[in-house]
Amino acid sequence: MSEPVLARPPIFERLAVIGCGLIGSSVIRAARKGGAVGTVAVYDASGDVRARVVELGYADQVFDSAADAVAGADLVIFAAPPAAIGEVAKLAAKGLKAGAVVSDVGSVKAAISDALLEALPDSVFVVPGHPIAGTESSGPDAGFAELFAGRWTILCPQARDDAPYADAVERLTAFWRALGANVELMDAKHHDLVLAVTSHLPHLIAYNIVGTAADLEDVTQGEVIKYSAGGFRDFTRIAASDPVMWRDVFLLNKDAVLEILGRFTEDLQALSRSIRWGEGEKLEALFTRTRAIRRGIVAAGQESAETNFGRDKKGG
Amino acid sequence: MSEPVLARPPIFERLAVIGCGLIGSSVIRAARKGGAVGTVAVYDASGDVRARVVELGYADQVFDSAADAVAGADLVIFAAPPAAIGEVAKLAAKGLKAGAVVSDVGSVKAAISDALLEALPDSVFVVPGHPIAGTESSGPDAGFAELFAGRWTILCPQARDDAPYADAVERLTAFWRALGANVELMDAKHHDLVLAVTSHLPHLIAYNIVGTAADLEDVTQGEVIKYSAGGFRDFTRIAASDPVMWRDVFLLNKDAVLEILGRFTEDLQALSRSIRWGEGEKLEALFTRTRAIRRGIVAAGQESAETNFGRDKKGG
Repeated sequence: MSEPVLARPPIFERLAVIGCGLIGSSVIRAARKGGAVGTVAVYDASGDVRARVVELGYADQVFDSAADAVAGADLVIFAAPPAAIGEVAKLAAKGLKAGAVVSDVGSVKAAISDALLEALPDSVFVVPGHPIAGTESSGPDAGFAELFAGRWTILCPQARDDAPYADAVERLTAFWRALGANVELMDAKHHDLVLAVTSHLPHLIAYNIVGTAADLEDVTQGEVIKYSAGGFRDFTRIAASDPVMWRDVFLLNKDAVLEILGRFTEDLQALSRSIRWGEGEKLEALFTRTRAIRRGIVAAGQESAETNFGRDKKGG
Repeated sequence: MSEPVLARPPIFERLAVIGCGLIGSSVIRAARKGGAVGTVAVYDASGDVRARVVELGYADQVFDSAADAVAGADLVIFAAPPAAIGEVAKLAAKGLKAGAVVSDVGSVKAAISDALLEALPDSVFVVPGHPIAGTESSGPDAGFAELFAGRWTILCPQARDDAPYADAVERLTAFWRALGANVELMDAKHHDLVLAVTSHLPHLIAYNIVGTAADLEDVTQGEVIKYSAGGFRDFTRIAASDPVMWRDVFLLNKDAVLEILGRFTEDLQALSRSIRWGEGEKLEALFTRTRAIRRGIVAAGQESAETNFGRDKKGG
């Protein structure tokens, strides 16, 4: 447990984290390191996790009820699995202090935003959020203070422009910056579409290909593991992400995921047909185009503004 | 150009590399570093590449014709794009020394093996090979001596058991070990099926998803780049691989790729249906199963023998 680095007062005096896995525990460690909070309270639905958080010592208090954990908190962050947030928010609601800022870290924003607004009283400021960061590890031991450094956190504020709410958004922005993140504001629906492309579909594809490989009769598991360096290994890393969290993401962002998946499948059928009919020039054209996108990512780091890289509309 | 590290004589006195991109130039650098060869001759179909290889200085001689380059060579390695190997082997054939060992580095083995055997005289020993190693970079500047260190090279010898051929296989095995690689012998057809799973399908999927993302109307390229850390970025790295080489791989290994792609698509349709109908338990079961495969890879490094990781046959 490190002391605040800076001599300025914390952005939020008391932080409550509800759900203490990889992201929840990283938020606590990063908030302490960045001097963003004074004291930290934790609740987790799992007694084992609560006991482990006590052992690890990065929280000041660990509670057996969500309502007790949020009592007196200036900032509450729900870091439970996405589909569990609505329920635990209902349990926490009666403990919330008026004027508290309430946020979350879920990978889906529209459904969670709706669930939070339904569960919580009007006296708190709900500002849903999503730090785009993670590892293949899970649980209260997995977090570390640098997880958010240089990564994007997207906040999806409600469509309201009163000054107290704007102030809440501003303080939450300052909080994430103190944790090392870059912050962007975005409409929740649009967030869900963007992330369906850049995160949800990649995970779905990775889970699927690893499953397909595991079911083959003529290639052994040992061979798949041994020769995985040719590309497969990268997919297995993604496909090792938390099963419960990802189940929830696909169920809560169903429409956007199915829309993007439909396009992906359509494109894949066209590619399959090109292979079957030996259309080498079409394959090469696609493979050349995708290379340009990589160059955009390498050139931009993760901090690119809007760019355009020779989009060849429906070219293959 | 480093001097041989070891005081033993080189495994092959004279090496000819035909095609000097990432792999060809890495073979030369690694062979010199490992003391596996005496002198090195190079041919490349591109005049620009030939000129660049002269500038870089890692070859002793650079020739304008494949037949001249292979003249007197004890080991010839074809490192041209897979579909070009048959043609350039025909051009090289008349220059080959009797008893030379002839190999290649192509990612497809059955088609290239057939092409080499058709193009080359019976007086040489054809032992097709495939080092499972690469980066997203291409060209004569991209190679480095450590590319094969600790990686697998698969050799696919012909079905013949005469002693001179066995000796050729043994010397080629020693050559790759001197370059730092682990060596495995495998039937060419089986190689093509294994690699269809562990390398070709992952590349096809990666190319496809990056293409799908580039064609979206409602998500900008800038957003895709900016928020790529959620999984997409790993796919862009794979989809930046050499377009010509990969075009050839899919065309030359068409049957195995379409077979594995068919299974992948079938599984993806089932997954899509589970999302549409909210079958959370099926999703979670798959995602838990794939996680176990990752653990197998992590536990085994890339050196695992046959293992079995709780295969749940057609379980969802």
